[in-house]
Amino acid sequence: MVKITALDTYDVRFPTSRELDGSDAMNPDPDYSAAYAVLRTDDPHGLAGYGLVFTIGRGNDVQKAALDALRPYVVGLSLDEVIGDLGGFAARMIGDSQLRWLGPEKGVMHMAIGAVVNAAWDMAARHAGKPLWRFIADMTPEQLVSVIDFRYLADALSPDEALQLLRTAERGKAQRIEQLLAEGYPAYTTSPGWLGYSDEKMLRLAREAVADGFRTIKLKVGHNVEDDIRRCRLARAEVGPDVAIAVDANQRWDVHRAIEWLRRLADVKLAWIEEPTSPDDVLGHAAIRRAIAPTPVSTGEHTHNRVMFKQLFQAGAVDLVQIDAARVGGVNENLAILLLAAKFGVRVFPHAGGVGLCELVQHLAMADFVAITGKKEDRAIEFVDHLHEHFVDPVTIRDGRYLAPTTPGFSAQMFDASIAEFRFPDGPAWQEPLHALNA
Amino acid sequence: MVKITALDTYDVRFPTSRELDGSDAMNPDPDYSAAYAVLRTDDPHGLAGYGLVFTIGRGNDVQKAALDALRPYVVGLSLDEVIGDLGGFAARMIGDSQLRWLGPEKGVMHMAIGAVVNAAWDMAARHAGKPLWRFIADMTPEQLVSVIDFRYLADALSPDEALQLLRTAERGKAQRIEQLLAEGYPAYTTSPGWLGYSDEKMLRLAREAVADGFRTIKLKVGHNVEDDIRRCRLARAEVGPDVAIAVDANQRWDVHRAIEWLRRLADVKLAWIEEPTSPDDVLGHAAIRRAIAPTPVSTGEHTHNRVMFKQLFQAGAVDLVQIDAARVGGVNENLAILLLAAKFGVRVFPHAGGVGLCELVQHLAMADFVAITGKKEDRAIEFVDHLHEHFVDPVTIRDGRYLAPTTPGFSAQMFDASIAEFRFPDGPAWQEPLHALNA
Repeated sequence: MVKITALDTYDVRFPTSRELDGSDAMNPDPDYSAAYAVLRTDDPHGLAGYGLVFTIGRGNDVQKAALDALRPYVVGLSLDEVIGDLGGFAARMIGDSQLRWLGPEKGVMHMAIGAVVNAAWDMAARHAGKPLWRFIADMTPEQLVSVIDFRYLADALSPDEALQLLRTAERGKAQRIEQLLAEGYPAYTTSPGWLGYSDEKMLRLAREAVADGFRTIKLKVGHNVEDDIRRCRLARAEVGPDVAIAVDANQRWDVHRAIEWLRRLADVKLAWIEEPTSPDDVLGHAAIRRAIAPTPVSTGEHTHNRVMFKQLFQAGAVDLVQIDAARVGGVNENLAILLLAAKFGVRVFPHAGGVGLCELVQHLAMADFVAITGKKEDRAIEFVDHLHEHFVDPVTIRDGRYLAPTTPGFSAQMFDASIAEFRFPDGPAWQEPLHALNA
Repeated sequence: MVKITALDTYDVRFPTSRELDGSDAMNPDPDYSAAYAVLRTDDPHGLAGYGLVFTIGRGNDVQKAALDALRPYVVGLSLDEVIGDLGGFAARMIGDSQLRWLGPEKGVMHMAIGAVVNAAWDMAARHAGKPLWRFIADMTPEQLVSVIDFRYLADALSPDEALQLLRTAERGKAQRIEQLLAEGYPAYTTSPGWLGYSDEKMLRLAREAVADGFRTIKLKVGHNVEDDIRRCRLARAEVGPDVAIAVDANQRWDVHRAIEWLRRLADVKLAWIEEPTSPDDVLGHAAIRRAIAPTPVSTGEHTHNRVMFKQLFQAGAVDLVQIDAARVGGVNENLAILLLAAKFGVRVFPHAGGVGLCELVQHLAMADFVAITGKKEDRAIEFVDHLHEHFVDPVTIRDGRYLAPTTPGFSAQMFDASIAEFRFPDGPAWQEPLHALNA
């Protein structure tokens, strides 16, 4: 009987702040990082599972400590107790009464559980010889419902309703799998939009993005309203009326400030405004949305669990949402969120970029298309061309679309050489003089 | 010039699960714990500051790791940079763009920052030779407003409104200080109500509580409705109609389930129902409150920041709230929450018990009485008679009331001997065979 023999964890950080890649109004100098988790087994073929929490630098050691705290919940389990019961495996950690106090279901501890749960899904998909999106698509509606924690959702989505949604989607599933493999899934790109870039660099990258086939680009805003107006108008002039422009304020504003600011950007015809204010402020997003209609409002990459997503939908606070593969409690909770979004008719534009988020989230969006909503052409997955070279099974983008992965697993595995090079603080990449706070 | 020389941190756990003290429907076997933080200085008189995060066992090591991650933000600062700028000191940690990703402003990282911020307030009050409640009461309205982070609050409370509230409270402040010193502050007790207790033990403790002068007792509910009905009716018969009975479900229910369950308890005339559902579910609490009126609804001990409290008030989701001294970002954020509650006319019944929570939160409630609302007889601070013996300046309860502390500081300092005895995993108290998950 195969057993889980270890949960190995790593603090991996990339010194991205040196280039201002990833700079926005709230995050001027991120060092894109991963608290990386590997579930190892005694399987003679070397079966393992890989997951990660994305962070932006300092605190990645705390995130690693939270992964370490999960070792007793994992090591010694049989393979079947993990991949044969993905619902129970997640529920035991999320429901642990002592750990629960540290959230509940939010922040460092919840993200750590999410990474280990994702590693278990990775292992399950590898064991089945399928990419994760396909592994999910091949589960029955009953199996999918059985892995979801419906606690606190009953006033918005019952297990029966979820089952109904999934059963309806059974029709045409095989055809959609073929379609996905042939067409890919739409991507949009944030590569031109970082606040730290000059107008010239932004325009050049926007031009290249359109030439590369992207139909939506996203710009960071929120530092200075005159700059934002200038940049958005320049971008609109560059890409023309048929390419969508979204903006992302990364939680920069109070409610009133968001409304004033966004009214001044109205002529740009934004595809959406993302994270105008605190991710916790459901009612604030609802107020902003009412005030700036018809500009679509969005949030989600920092929305910490299904209860918050439920309320965003119940309050009519958003036109669309981001989901994040490494913020909530793993695939299980993201399935709940995708089903809630489907029920409320809210489109999902997954958050990506960072370290490995593109690799992870593509599977969720593709599973949603095949097994839940049947839709993909009215939505898109974020794409940023950073750090993919460190992943064993990196995303493939062609003509502005994500091609469906075909390698078994969840695509989160990093190269050993990358981990060795960028381990913090002992990897060679970190042997240069460091900022005092990283010392 | 005095400098901060160290941030020492400790994982202290008490094996309370052996007695079922603290057992409730969500937390069957807590080991009450503290991730304990000491700010040390090179002051020749030994000035230091003490703070803690309360947890219930497993994960306390993760909480300690989060405290450790704050060392670079603290060590090397001058005393004046800490206690002369309590707003800036907190804002630098809470606003750190890289750490912020781990929340934002929630969970393990936010609680750690709160503990270090509280330690700074403890140090400031010690330095001034005043108990914290008095230190706050002696600050001017302008000084108080200057330590508060109003980000995300503008649609509910502006700095000017806060200033107005505080200036109004200046009238009569000296008299209220005398009144507080003479009368103390009402307490209520949860000691009888733990789910693990037999009916006999519950009734004996309820009888003793009333004899000790408490006018409100609280029972844990949510495990079994028939048990709850029986226990509540027994308690009502025991204490009579004039002692208030509150119940606490510790987040056990979905919205619909809460409504059904609580309708069956209507004849007990509850003082409030606490934490009927997820602490994140603002709209859920509002729905429950509408459905079970006039039974008052409450939450707050797990409400993770001021943005969530703001929405509880805006949505009319609660009749009263708990605040917790060690869940949010320290005194600064609790001042914001107290001001929000004052503006919305919502009464505050602080959460206590655990490790050191009574010691901490009494200062906040008393500061609220003296410097913010001027009210105390229509509210009460929770009291549980656990673990006070480990504190250098424990609470004093007389006739069901907290006596105002007179020793300088925030009362969070623990005895060195207690820390040595209960340090996890190396303290003598933990050298018996442990549960596998604690190993």
